[in-house]
Formats: sequence, structure tokens, C-alpha cells
Amino acid sequence: MKIDRNAPVGVFDSGIGGLTVAREIMRNLPSEKIVYFGDTARVPYGSKSKETIIRYSRQIIRFLLEQQVKAIVIACNTASAFALDAVRDELSIPVLGVIESGAVVAAKETKNKRVGVIGTIGTVGSGIHESCLHRLDPEITVIGKACPLFVPLVEEGWLHDPVTTQVAERYLDELKEKEIDTLILGCTHYPLLRSTIHEVMGDGVRLVNPAYESALELRSVLKKEGLLRQEGQKEEFPYRFYVSDLADKFKSFANSILPYNVEMTQKIDIEKY
Amino acid sequence: MKIDRNAPVGVFDSGIGGLTVAREIMRNLPSEKIVYFGDTARVPYGSKSKETIIRYSRQIIRFLLEQQVKAIVIACNTASAFALDAVRDELSIPVLGVIESGAVVAAKETKNKRVGVIGTIGTVGSGIHESCLHRLDPEITVIGKACPLFVPLVEEGWLHDPVTTQVAERYLDELKEKEIDTLILGCTHYPLLRSTIHEVMGDGVRLVNPAYESALELRSVLKKEGLLRQEGQKEEFPYRFYVSDLADKFKSFANSILPYNVEMTQKIDIEKY
Repeated sequence: MKIDRNAPVGVFDSGIGGLTVAREIMRNLPSEKIVYFGDTARVPYGSKSKETIIRYSRQIIRFLLEQQVKAIVIACNTASAFALDAVRDELSIPVLGVIESGAVVAAKETKNKRVGVIGTIGTVGSGIHESCLHRLDPEITVIGKACPLFVPLVEEGWLHDPVTTQVAERYLDELKEKEIDTLILGCTHYPLLRSTIHEVMGDGVRLVNPAYESALELRSVLKKEGLLRQEGQKEEFPYRFYVSDLADKFKSFANSILPYNVEMTQKIDIEKY
Repeated sequence: MKIDRNAPVGVFDSGIGGLTVAREIMRNLPSEKIVYFGDTARVPYGSKSKETIIRYSRQIIRFLLEQQVKAIVIACNTASAFALDAVRDELSIPVLGVIESGAVVAAKETKNKRVGVIGTIGTVGSGIHESCLHRLDPEITVIGKACPLFVPLVEEGWLHDPVTTQVAERYLDELKEKEIDTLILGCTHYPLLRSTIHEVMGDGVRLVNPAYESALELRSVLKKEGLLRQEGQKEEFPYRFYVSDLADKFKSFANSILPYNVEMTQKIDIEKY
């Protein structure tokens, strides 16, 4: 079956965090259309089991395929960690995960071969960054650290705040002691804490933002497959947003971080898929 | 149909927080058996819609009825707020919610008729404490304040911590300015932050713990209905714990707060109910 190059790209996340990935796609691939799904009814994924995450991801992918997407970006780190391999085998369109995109860049950037990873308990505990980085370079030492308070701090809007700085210091001190030179922001909310994390880690540590890196990888994959949408080709409503719950809260967060006014967000019953 | 007084009491929550309610039942009704369900796969409820919470609550109640409980305590504030009225009409056994139990005591204790309520966004936004308190005394002014960082701070184990104190000061300053004399801890995790909240609010504010109050109300309801289990009657495994995901994490939290060693926690597929 031939894939339509004018079809939208599907992006999904456990909630609103994946909008940082959608934002990078909008910035870096401005001709592409996007169908975004945020699983706001079942957020967060970080504390759930692999089995549950795979089931949720399959439901969401069935929904995105119904929207006739030409490629899928798993913007959620937990879902990338737990479900990417399983669902990739089941699909005939390209599927990317934020984990791999970040790992490739980190492996290239590190000089002392000591890479830190911060994320939710689920992502860090899965060891997925470690296996991904070791596949690229077995000599890299990976130091993971779960930072469960970062997501609620972002959602509270305390992005530049003394409390957030203290929490960041508490979490990141361990990584500083272990002398990493590269740090992967392994959760989609974390790019919004980039300046605080940079302040705590100092100039000597390169921060890798997988949201940005996966937008670049998407461009390269679409190009290779001949699926890039023609540049300059515009549509009135290029971006569609779907959630499984509470569309209003989603809309206000989306409007605060996207370079685009999210007019309509539609709630769907994802458990039917 | 006659209800068996030797049957267990069903207690449910969106996750682990409701264990503070189970703990008070264990302490104050030591003869009662308990079946606890924590919806750890779908936690948190605080950010979900009323419609979703009612659907989840009905599924859990179907499961608890299968365990032949004689009464149900909705230990989750969000579920009490959104689902209690709907499910109470559908059941022939007593159903209690933590909201009402707390409100009755707060209405009795306040002298200046200014009552504060802290909880999740969902609970505070629902205005349920306000309607409950106004039914008891229309002259009470209710001041609500959502404290979304409290739950992750408790789950991180930062119960007595300078960061937690600063977050509490930020959230509670507004309530201090409004001169409340009574404060309802409107989320099941919050009793674990009781000493920090007391420190910030000072001696002049009476803290109401609905976990404790609902255990007392349960005793009074069971007594009235002739459903109290005989005192001194013991069983080897009086407490059974079920979760919808990640039973191990639940077990370690349960063991850290309960006066009882949680040997077996069973995972069930709640979406089948």
C-alpha cells in the first residue's frame, strides 16, 4: 500500500508533555500536518507496568491509524521505553521514539563517555536509555536518576522558581558527583525546566533535548522514505489535537507552550479502540 | 436480603492514599475485616472528569460486591466528590464518603465560621466540601486551595523536609490571610503531612483529618444497622489488598504506613468490571 505524503504525522503522549515534541515538529518541519493524541484520562504512564503501557499504546495507534497518519512519533518516554519495539513490528509506517533520537545524539556528544539520564521512575527504571546507548557505544557509562517531582512542578507552572531550583539541586547533585558531561532530558516535560537544569548542572554539561532531536530524526526518516510534505504547502487547520479527558485544561497548557492557537481540542473515548 | 455482619468492609481509593483511611479503620474498628482496592493503574483521579470518575467507581464497586462486602467507604476525595451520590442510590449496603465525614466535624468545630479545604484540583474545583458544609450550616464561609504538589511530595517520602515546608507555606499563606480557624485535609495523602501543615498553620487552626472521622462514622453506621462485627473476633488474614497495577510499589508504601505487614497484594484487571 502506498503511503500518502500529504497525510499528517501522528504524535502521542501520556498527556500534555508530548506537546514539547509537537512544538519542535512545528518549528522544524513547518509544512507537516500533525494529529496529536494526549492520553489525559490515564496519565501518568511513569508509574504503570510495561504490559499496561503496551496495551494503551496499541489503542492509541489504532486511533491514529484511523486518522490515516503516515508516520508515528511516540513522544512519551515511558511508552517509547516499553512499547516501541512491540508496536514497530506490527506497523507498515515509520514509528519513532524519543528515547532513540536522544540516545544517538548523546552518544555522539559525550567526550568522557559518562552520560546522565533523568526521567520518571518508569523510564529510568526500565534501563532503556542504557541499552540504547550501549548498542551505539558499549563503553559509555550511563547514570540514571528519577525526578518524580519535575512533572508536577512544570504543571504547576513553577518553571523559574526557588523551590524548583532546590528540588533540581537535590535530584542532580548525585549526577554532578558522578562527573557526567552529557545529560539526556528523558521526560517530555523537562525541556520546560531546561534553564533551571542548566543552572544547576553548569556549562560543562551538554543537555540533550530528545524533543528537538526526534523532530530532526523525523525529517530525515520522512525524506528517506519519500514522505516529506512539499515545502510551503499550507493548510488552514494543519494541527488537530485529541485527548481522552478534560480537553479544557489541555487547551490552556497547549496555548501556553505552542506557537499556535489551539482552537479545538476533541475528547475521544480511547478505551473503545 | 440480609447483610452478613461478618463480611468485610470495602475501602477504595485511586491509589495508595486511601491506606490512611484503612489505617484508621484498623486502629478504631480492630474487629472489622477489610477488602482494599487501589486503582493504581488509573491514578490520579484529581485531574479527571466527573463522568470518568463515576465510571471508574462503578467498576470498582462491582468488584467489591463480588467480594461480598457489607459496607463501602470511598476513601478517595475525588471519587467521594464526584461519585458518592450516583452510586449510593444504586446500592443496598451503606456507602460512606470521606468528604461528608470531614465536613460534619469541621462544621461542629469552627468558631468563626471560616473553614479552609485543601485537596487536589478536582476535589477543590468540585466545590463539594462547600455544598456539604452549607447543608450543615449555611453561614460557614469555605475557602478552598488546591495543593497539587503535596501528593508527589508524600510519594517521594519527603514528609519532613525543608522543600515540603516551603511548598506548604506557598500554598497555605492564602488560607492564613483569610483567617480560617479550621482546615480540612481534603486528600487522603495529606494526613502524612499533618505535622508540616500544623507547623505552617499554627496552633490557632484546628486540622480535620477525614480519614479518622470516617472510621468513626463507619463505626456509628455499622452499629446503627446491626452490622458491627463481634469484638475480639480475630482472623488470620483480616485484610486483603487489591490493585489495578504495580502491586510491588503499593506493598512497600502500605508496609511503611500500616500497623500490619501486607503480605499479599493482588493485581486485578479492573477494566473487566
